[in-house]
Amino acid sequence: MTGLLETPYGTRDFLPAEAATKRAVEQRLIKLFAAFGYDEVVTPTMEYLETLTTSGGRVIEPHLFKMFDRNNHTLALRHEMTTPIARLVSARLNDAPLPLKLSYLSNVFRFRTNQPGRQCEFHQAGVELIGTSNAFADAEIVALAAQALSVAGLVDFRISLGHVDFAAGLMQNLPHDLQTQIKTAIERHDIVALNSLPIPDALKKIPALQGGRDLLTDAQALADNDSSRRALDDLSEIYRLLEVYGVADKITFDLGLIRDFEYYTGMVFEAYAPGVGYSLAGGGRYDNMLADFGAARSATGFALGIERILDARKFQHADSTASTKKIFVGYAVGREVCAIERAGELRAAGNVVELSLTPQTQAEAEKSRAEKFCTDLVYVA
Amino acid sequence: MTGLLETPYGTRDFLPAEAATKRAVEQRLIKLFAAFGYDEVVTPTMEYLETLTTSGGRVIEPHLFKMFDRNNHTLALRHEMTTPIARLVSARLNDAPLPLKLSYLSNVFRFRTNQPGRQCEFHQAGVELIGTSNAFADAEIVALAAQALSVAGLVDFRISLGHVDFAAGLMQNLPHDLQTQIKTAIERHDIVALNSLPIPDALKKIPALQGGRDLLTDAQALADNDSSRRALDDLSEIYRLLEVYGVADKITFDLGLIRDFEYYTGMVFEAYAPGVGYSLAGGGRYDNMLADFGAARSATGFALGIERILDARKFQHADSTASTKKIFVGYAVGREVCAIERAGELRAAGNVVELSLTPQTQAEAEKSRAEKFCTDLVYVA
Repeated sequence: MTGLLETPYGTRDFLPAEAATKRAVEQRLIKLFAAFGYDEVVTPTMEYLETLTTSGGRVIEPHLFKMFDRNNHTLALRHEMTTPIARLVSARLNDAPLPLKLSYLSNVFRFRTNQPGRQCEFHQAGVELIGTSNAFADAEIVALAAQALSVAGLVDFRISLGHVDFAAGLMQNLPHDLQTQIKTAIERHDIVALNSLPIPDALKKIPALQGGRDLLTDAQALADNDSSRRALDDLSEIYRLLEVYGVADKITFDLGLIRDFEYYTGMVFEAYAPGVGYSLAGGGRYDNMLADFGAARSATGFALGIERILDARKFQHADSTASTKKIFVGYAVGREVCAIERAGELRAAGNVVELSLTPQTQAEAEKSRAEKFCTDLVYVA
Repeated sequence: MTGLLETPYGTRDFLPAEAATKRAVEQRLIKLFAAFGYDEVVTPTMEYLETLTTSGGRVIEPHLFKMFDRNNHTLALRHEMTTPIARLVSARLNDAPLPLKLSYLSNVFRFRTNQPGRQCEFHQAGVELIGTSNAFADAEIVALAAQALSVAGLVDFRISLGHVDFAAGLMQNLPHDLQTQIKTAIERHDIVALNSLPIPDALKKIPALQGGRDLLTDAQALADNDSSRRALDDLSEIYRLLEVYGVADKITFDLGLIRDFEYYTGMVFEAYAPGVGYSLAGGGRYDNMLADFGAARSATGFALGIERILDARKFQHADSTASTKKIFVGYAVGREVCAIERAGELRAAGNVVELSLTPQTQAEAEKSRAEKFCTDLVYVA
């Protein structure tokens, strides 16, 4: 039995105070993305199923909300924004000069069961940088993610930075099935399973390869192939640039970092903050995805989880965004014309003004002011 | 056959220029709503089907996008925001002091076929004013709608204002089936069908009852019952207050105005602008809906169609919102550290800055600046 007054499983309302914080955080993010030259785009909430499942589709399909259109084609609610933006770029921005720098602020949907703290509908802000394959582009993305968490009001957060080619290089001569077992064990931090596999010691050490700048030097000893060595060089260069951006103190290397989606091809990262058990942000390089839509282009980007940022803000007692002056305008019987005019003048001067909808005595107006959490009373007698 | 690169029927992408205008218009609307004391709320994109169909459900159900949750309950994508907000108020703001003033900025969904210019997914901004039943509240709503269209950049628009009780009073003693036939004929502006019905002359004149303030006086002669007379008195009082708000010059009375939904109980209005064949905004009083969710409360409100406002803006050559200064920072080989620092300083000073992702000669940088529509070049030699 469903209740008329309930929201569906995995969805929620934002009441005024929460919605105001969400709006303020989102506006700061969009302003930051714009300051870095990223232009917002908006795509439909629903896409054709085949669009969403083209890259890494087997993994995501069970988690999509699906429906049918009038011609019985299967539609699905978008589960992230990277794929819709790859479609948009391939379909409509094919001739735009590269690099393309795009941003978004969107709700996305994932069908989930029994995962506490995870929502079926949630909001993401993010950017995609398309057409540049160097470490300089990756550094801009990681630096922008760090600055985004800062402008969102967070002081205490860390970014784990890894590279899919380090592990990939170490595994490259192993059978495909065994590679899948290794990835699964690393992703689940299942050391017992990893140690039980018939694989080189270097691979068994991957989950322990976490640390500061020195970790990259230590890992050189394990890198017995070009792919792994290039991954470490790439991370070194990204780190050098992140020092210039002033965000290197937020970085921890994690060579066992494997992101949910199968499409990453280079550096990958996730951001964490105290009191929130899931990553606040994640991203990386995905050079193969745009080829699936017809135009091969390198790309890198990230997404921030808005609800998770709001949770982390609460834990960190981030600055409140809702402390504006608010004026309640009350009026005596027969004085409504003057009250409307006065409210209009106050709004024109930049104030937030709640005009009483009925005549009141001054005492009643003062009571209404308090009830409505207004800071000031203007009474037209 | 669906295309990998297509968006589903009735949906669309917003490319950067369009998305920037949409964002600017939406921010102005949210700021205006806040200045009137309306607090934003956010509700889920999907609701239980029974929630959306509780009020006026028979009419809307064929137009809902439906899907199933994990327990085989039917969910639907919201088709408007008034019903979800009625649910939210009844479920979570039952004890809040009245009046409640809420606003929203949301995407909504309606399954449609063969209606050119109509989207299956579109965006609405709007407000709901809950707990006050007088003309003063209705006047605030109509005045706010007019000011919203103004801050959205429109100069040339008109608001048609009517009242469901005028026609309802004239029909009150007729059989229900005949009332439905009359409503349908009026809604479709089908004068031939209306004139063929066995009804009093006053009802046949309804489609012609359009005009300025004098129309209310003229219509008094047709009002042979209390309900119709009270409707005219109500409209007179709303108009008097709209004169104070300074928006009376935008108002045309239309006593044949019948809105799509069955739930309106008092004044109703729609806004129109040249070059756009559909109403830009619509709303009215709906005093019965909240009772369907358990707590009877009077309510009035409106919704603006964002896409339609964007269309009307184009037709009226509204002021462009995308004329900010944008700086392209280029740099010579080996000068990337200085370039990152320079870009950071410029952003900290409030500028929009696109940093080159590769070293360039000054000539190359100038070419990139032009390609990226940047207004200024800063070159780090």
